[in-house]
Amino acid sequence: MNTNAVFYHAGCPVCVDAEQQLAGALDPARYQVEIVHLGQQRERIGEAAAAGVASVPALVIGGLPLHINFGAHLTDL
Amino acid sequence: MNTNAVFYHAGCPVCVDAEQQLAGALDPARYQVEIVHLGQQRERIGEAAAAGVASVPALVIGGLPLHINFGAHLTDL
Repeated sequence: MNTNAVFYHAGCPVCVDAEQQLAGALDPARYQVEIVHLGQQRERIGEAAAAGVASVPALVIGGLPLHINFGAHLTDL
Repeated sequence: MNTNAVFYHAGCPVCVDAEQQLAGALDPARYQVEIVHLGQQRERIGEAAAAGVASVPALVIGGLPLHINFGAHLTDL
């Protein structure tokens, strides 16, 4: 069974390495990871907020929002 | 090749589910995940700080410290 995981970011240059390392570290046998750049896909900001995302980068996995380090508040995008 | 990943936490009740979900989601073929409870293993606080960990829960993966949500500052442990 594959669980969806969504990694939201906004291109934060300081965090891109860390972001991609974490998103790429998930078990591909169990997780299907989608990467969403909210600066480029602003129409998905509402979806991220509804999932509980308050800042980026964030990983929503199994419905849980995990905020990873800190790039920007969602309200600043 | 297995990469070491260390998940530092301090028993934060709000975060345990999220923590274990993320630590358990890493690809076991590539990552060997160690869980460290810094409240119980205070002798490892220095090691966590040296890795760049400022707060828990945090995952150090490939040498990069990723702070996940927020439980407590390392200095408060």
